[in-house]
Amino acid sequence: MDTAKDVHTNSSWTPPATRFVELHGDYGTTDFIMRRGGSLPKVVIAYESWGRLSQMRDNAVLVFTGLSPTAHACSSLEDPAPGWWEYMIGPGKPIDTNQFYVVCVNSLGSCFGSTGPYSINPATGQRYAIDFPDLTIEDIAKAGHHAMQELGIDHLCAVVGSSMGGMSSLAYALQYPDEVDYLVTISSACRSLPLAIAMRSIQREIVRCDPDWREGRYDSEKEPKRGMTLARKIGLITYRAGEEWNQRFNRARAGMEYKDRDKFGIEFEVESYLDYNANKFVDSFDANSYLYLSRAMDWFDVAEHGGSVNAGLAKIHSKKTLIIGVETDILFPIKQQEDIFFGIQKAGRSVEFVRLPSIKGHDSFLVDEENFAPVVQKFFSEIG
Amino acid sequence: MDTAKDVHTNSSWTPPATRFVELHGDYGTTDFIMRRGGSLPKVVIAYESWGRLSQMRDNAVLVFTGLSPTAHACSSLEDPAPGWWEYMIGPGKPIDTNQFYVVCVNSLGSCFGSTGPYSINPATGQRYAIDFPDLTIEDIAKAGHHAMQELGIDHLCAVVGSSMGGMSSLAYALQYPDEVDYLVTISSACRSLPLAIAMRSIQREIVRCDPDWREGRYDSEKEPKRGMTLARKIGLITYRAGEEWNQRFNRARAGMEYKDRDKFGIEFEVESYLDYNANKFVDSFDANSYLYLSRAMDWFDVAEHGGSVNAGLAKIHSKKTLIIGVETDILFPIKQQEDIFFGIQKAGRSVEFVRLPSIKGHDSFLVDEENFAPVVQKFFSEIG
Repeated sequence: MDTAKDVHTNSSWTPPATRFVELHGDYGTTDFIMRRGGSLPKVVIAYESWGRLSQMRDNAVLVFTGLSPTAHACSSLEDPAPGWWEYMIGPGKPIDTNQFYVVCVNSLGSCFGSTGPYSINPATGQRYAIDFPDLTIEDIAKAGHHAMQELGIDHLCAVVGSSMGGMSSLAYALQYPDEVDYLVTISSACRSLPLAIAMRSIQREIVRCDPDWREGRYDSEKEPKRGMTLARKIGLITYRAGEEWNQRFNRARAGMEYKDRDKFGIEFEVESYLDYNANKFVDSFDANSYLYLSRAMDWFDVAEHGGSVNAGLAKIHSKKTLIIGVETDILFPIKQQEDIFFGIQKAGRSVEFVRLPSIKGHDSFLVDEENFAPVVQKFFSEIG
Repeated sequence: MDTAKDVHTNSSWTPPATRFVELHGDYGTTDFIMRRGGSLPKVVIAYESWGRLSQMRDNAVLVFTGLSPTAHACSSLEDPAPGWWEYMIGPGKPIDTNQFYVVCVNSLGSCFGSTGPYSINPATGQRYAIDFPDLTIEDIAKAGHHAMQELGIDHLCAVVGSSMGGMSSLAYALQYPDEVDYLVTISSACRSLPLAIAMRSIQREIVRCDPDWREGRYDSEKEPKRGMTLARKIGLITYRAGEEWNQRFNRARAGMEYKDRDKFGIEFEVESYLDYNANKFVDSFDANSYLYLSRAMDWFDVAEHGGSVNAGLAKIHSKKTLIIGVETDILFPIKQQEDIFFGIQKAGRSVEFVRLPSIKGHDSFLVDEENFAPVVQKFFSEIG
């Protein structure tokens, strides 16, 4: 089922346990048709998996990621490094790999093994860069779906996603309503609202203002790292919450290594935290991928699937949906979690909404095991 | 008392009714000593005033502004253009100029007539630029205080400030506790917390990343406008609130004039709103002034005046203090308004805290006349 690893030569970096699957496209061709126009002649999706697919092929759980992660959601024998959702997936963990076959895909358009702007365009032998067609969340969901088909999985037990991944999960359940039993969205939204759009728009503009961006035709040796670092800092601000930072940093000063570097430079610990983490991210993430994925989130609107948000949500046929939200999330506010809940409830489907008091803002699902693990554990323990 | 308008030749722009006062400095010299070191050989403060100073000189109300405004808080015969706080100041208005002599100063370090980085350094004949000494909120308060002295006002009836101006007002009341009767702070804070520091830090970094910033030595003909525009957009995001934007913009698309300009460019109305307003601001505001004022806010900490926030606030001797805050403020959260209130209350002083449900975030005081006017009106009507 898997295409050999050497099929894949077009990512910036992929974790060691990553596998690759080349998709059959649409209408019996290899062409992958994009929602807003254009197509890709070949699509490879990077993924990792844990657990075993049952003989009935009925225990697959597909995980979509947020904007930044790789498919390495958790460790394995092949790659013992902790994954980005290590506490959530594994034997005896909330998404129990003794029971479920868990697949995490790197999103279409990302740069960790899946086809995206960083990939080589077969037509030109050059990277797609900004010739990559417009990317939507629906395309990401479709690529995940086609990847599952290549893996011999025609029906999912569950689709799970957080942040952008929650949007991809919603798009999956909307587009393939009869091919998924359970749905979990975490700190996500059925449409992007102005504050989130503004926060992402400014990040994209900053990247594009970096002279090294070169209208998207940057050299791999000279990427727009300064713009990406600035953009990522803004991203990081939106992923956390004020009260956590009050407790964690308050007005602590940064270490001596930052002293006197620059008249207006880093002085507070919160500034050095952002600087460290943004720089770490930028070393591995492709700028054009960032732009495409960021824009895809702005465009996402369940209302495009039926005329209104509720009409769109009514297309979801899952046996049960779990919506988790966090009160301190400024990017995907709790109100937007309620909107998903009410829409699915209104359609007469079984849905549960869990409102968590995590103080760590949007990214709580990555770090707040204490609050998240029991909720997800309970949901999956009641399946099948 | 006023120095002639032609004394002042070093601002980027000043409104028509602006007057200028040259300060006597400290220790009987003209040198204005800065809190963090260094001094200014000459300081000019730009101001506007409304109403008449009483014979007893006991009806003066000093208004400190936020980061951006000029001293033109309201219109006058000399300058009929509406001021930034038009609804608040004037005959029969909440701060009633039939009763009070209201003075609004342009902050030290700003660029609308007061001495700042854009001013000519007498020692070199060049603009100070980043040779301007470190600027603190306490310096801004002191410059306001010295300006009042030059105007023959040794004792204020009240000091009033919103946002950064609220910090300046607190610093005034702390530094000159026996020279002010009443204090009003609006959407302000007695210290900057990490989220606000992070939001401002990233703005400063963006300005400094603009190649036209040239380490602060930019040409007046080629200012770092691109960086300033980006920085201001982030500022504007922090000044407003998500729910207002949901109601105002939702997912409306920008006008046709933005169509197809750029693959990742403006598509939503919220983006065009930010673009329009940021560009408008950048045409009038000096980049180095922005950096200095922004940094001054990060540094401000009432705890420096006595070892703790409450020890600092205990130095305030005003007869009554009014604290106004807005629930949707993400930059100066309502919790920080409570902190000021509790500190002053704990010191046994009369203090009132009004928590407003405005949906327009930090900048509500500029636009939400309905909520703000009655509260301020009541406070001032009970004075003297």
